[in-house]
Amino acid sequence: MTTIDDFVSIIPAGGVGSRLWPLSRADAPKFLHDLTGSGKTLLRATYERLVPLTGPGRTMIVTGRAHRAAVEAQIPELDDADIVLEADPRDSTVAIALAAAILRRREPDVIVGSFAADHVIDDERAFRRVVAEAVAAARAGAIATIGITPTEPAIGFGYIHAGEPAGVEGAPRAAVVRAFVEKPSAQVAREYVEGGDHLWNAGMFIARADVLLEELAKGEPELAAQIEELAEAWDEPARRGPAVDRIWPQLKKIAIDYAIAEPAAARGRLVVVPGDFDWDDVGDFSAVAKLHNGGRRGRLAILGDQGTVLADSASGIVVSQSKRIVSVVGIRDVVVVDTPDALLVTTTANAQRVKQVVDAVRRSGNTDAL
Amino acid sequence: MTTIDDFVSIIPAGGVGSRLWPLSRADAPKFLHDLTGSGKTLLRATYERLVPLTGPGRTMIVTGRAHRAAVEAQIPELDDADIVLEADPRDSTVAIALAAAILRRREPDVIVGSFAADHVIDDERAFRRVVAEAVAAARAGAIATIGITPTEPAIGFGYIHAGEPAGVEGAPRAAVVRAFVEKPSAQVAREYVEGGDHLWNAGMFIARADVLLEELAKGEPELAAQIEELAEAWDEPARRGPAVDRIWPQLKKIAIDYAIAEPAAARGRLVVVPGDFDWDDVGDFSAVAKLHNGGRRGRLAILGDQGTVLADSASGIVVSQSKRIVSVVGIRDVVVVDTPDALLVTTTANAQRVKQVVDAVRRSGNTDAL
Repeated sequence: MTTIDDFVSIIPAGGVGSRLWPLSRADAPKFLHDLTGSGKTLLRATYERLVPLTGPGRTMIVTGRAHRAAVEAQIPELDDADIVLEADPRDSTVAIALAAAILRRREPDVIVGSFAADHVIDDERAFRRVVAEAVAAARAGAIATIGITPTEPAIGFGYIHAGEPAGVEGAPRAAVVRAFVEKPSAQVAREYVEGGDHLWNAGMFIARADVLLEELAKGEPELAAQIEELAEAWDEPARRGPAVDRIWPQLKKIAIDYAIAEPAAARGRLVVVPGDFDWDDVGDFSAVAKLHNGGRRGRLAILGDQGTVLADSASGIVVSQSKRIVSVVGIRDVVVVDTPDALLVTTTANAQRVKQVVDAVRRSGNTDAL
Repeated sequence: MTTIDDFVSIIPAGGVGSRLWPLSRADAPKFLHDLTGSGKTLLRATYERLVPLTGPGRTMIVTGRAHRAAVEAQIPELDDADIVLEADPRDSTVAIALAAAILRRREPDVIVGSFAADHVIDDERAFRRVVAEAVAAARAGAIATIGITPTEPAIGFGYIHAGEPAGVEGAPRAAVVRAFVEKPSAQVAREYVEGGDHLWNAGMFIARADVLLEELAKGEPELAAQIEELAEAWDEPARRGPAVDRIWPQLKKIAIDYAIAEPAAARGRLVVVPGDFDWDDVGDFSAVAKLHNGGRRGRLAILGDQGTVLADSASGIVVSQSKRIVSVVGIRDVVVVDTPDALLVTTTANAQRVKQVVDAVRRSGNTDAL
């Protein structure tokens, strides 16, 4: 497969991943961890997955100032121009639309695709085929998203309701998006999976940069104008800082789903290409355990220092980040995350509740551990 | 109740309590912990339980050299003469018989009673009544033991088979011991509890010092002679050291049950007084949890630093000895023991298996953590 000349990837690297606390935290967010045992951080794996599509030097990372050094260490291939540093987090619309606006000034007809920095996809060939279709649809003027074919009636994801075929050349599987739907109940999720025309919303958007910004301007004209103003000053060193200082504090925090995708879908401008590849957003420690144990129960995954973990009749996952001895005895589906300043003990079935613990830690004032 | 003039208590303070690892360990053994939340270590509580029986200045502690400072800090009432420091551990016969031999040289008709340093008894009045009967039986020439009335068919204890009444003045409940029996099967334990004439062996022995040593000499004449030789030199500062250096390495390691109690029972010289008080040997973390949660399930006991423990839908026990945040989420009957260099995660049902972990740590060479 050859690279796509007019395509640039955008990787927003921002979320802490608080359901993976205390492993994932403000100064060591999820995307900077190797959660699969591949030897690569999720960010590095995401980057390497995209380079064959875009060619080298065609990736833009959007991240916080605090993560600049870590991101550069992970991807030494990046130039300064390939990193957008956020003064503070302003949600996904600012991250993606600002990168798109900067790229469009450099290359007016560019097609951009945004991909989370912390998802796992193993079947890279299938991924590339699907992205190539999405790029074809984007070139024809649509905003394209990739909807993952559900493998179970998950209630933790939003769904995309696919409609009639979009009839776009080069994108035979693209369908018009009828609607984005919020996380469903278990019953509704089962109906979605049986029905076959609902796909998981994996937050991947591919579009011409000008189309994306045009759609943003329709629903959020002020935000779109602010982003254009920032982008216009961005590549001039003397002007960027003052523009950021002036404009950044006013930027609206809004997810791209609400600011662009849903309104564009309502206007019939969104298409979805079904993603028939494996995909995991590694949303909690249950997912991490599943990735490591190959989906088989009764096993104990060990991340980190294996030498200090002693297990006897235990299954689940142990994350060993302190130098201490960790002994786990006679306990099934356990989650033990041992870090120098915080310990979590739960079960895979309760892995989603970790976010509440993080809230409790915040309330307790121990914010150093977050 | 008045004190018993001719009675001295011996408290062997030796066992590490490896089923309570990593809380209990070589340099912080079980008897130096407050496992009940009373604010007192088990050793201090044992001492305070016995002083009303013996009067002040009538307690002898037998412990390792490494624990001398900790024992003195716990019981500042002790004089140097009240502490027997072991050169290295030689099991319970040496600990108790040496103390008895030293005490007999100071006070020929003394009655001694040995009581573990790490058991829990709440009903002290009932305890004192039972000990007073045992002392009466001892004064009449018997070796008396206290057998705890079983509250469940426990398989973790040895049992004492009580026979006909001993007919001793001042000890109306004393019965002749038919036999000591090893830890039984569950079926046999049920029969014992139903039958009513089997009691738990709590390792408490009360006897005239001379009777105890006489019985030892019958079965273990060499050990008895060595102990006498040590005791004879003990109270002369210039002679104690050389005697210890010469004799200690030769001392046989044998439990008092085998060296004295069982043979004496076979000779009809042992009586048992039923102990109708609560008693707990706090053998594992399940017992610690039960002591704290008042036997009620569904509660989470927290030992140590309460302020850093965050629990959500959790029951069992958390021991927090590091300064870290410990979060326990959605897990029942859990045991989490968090110390600076070792972490244990198990369930109350598996608490007995902790000893195997300690063996595994030893094999792994991490002996600093033991």
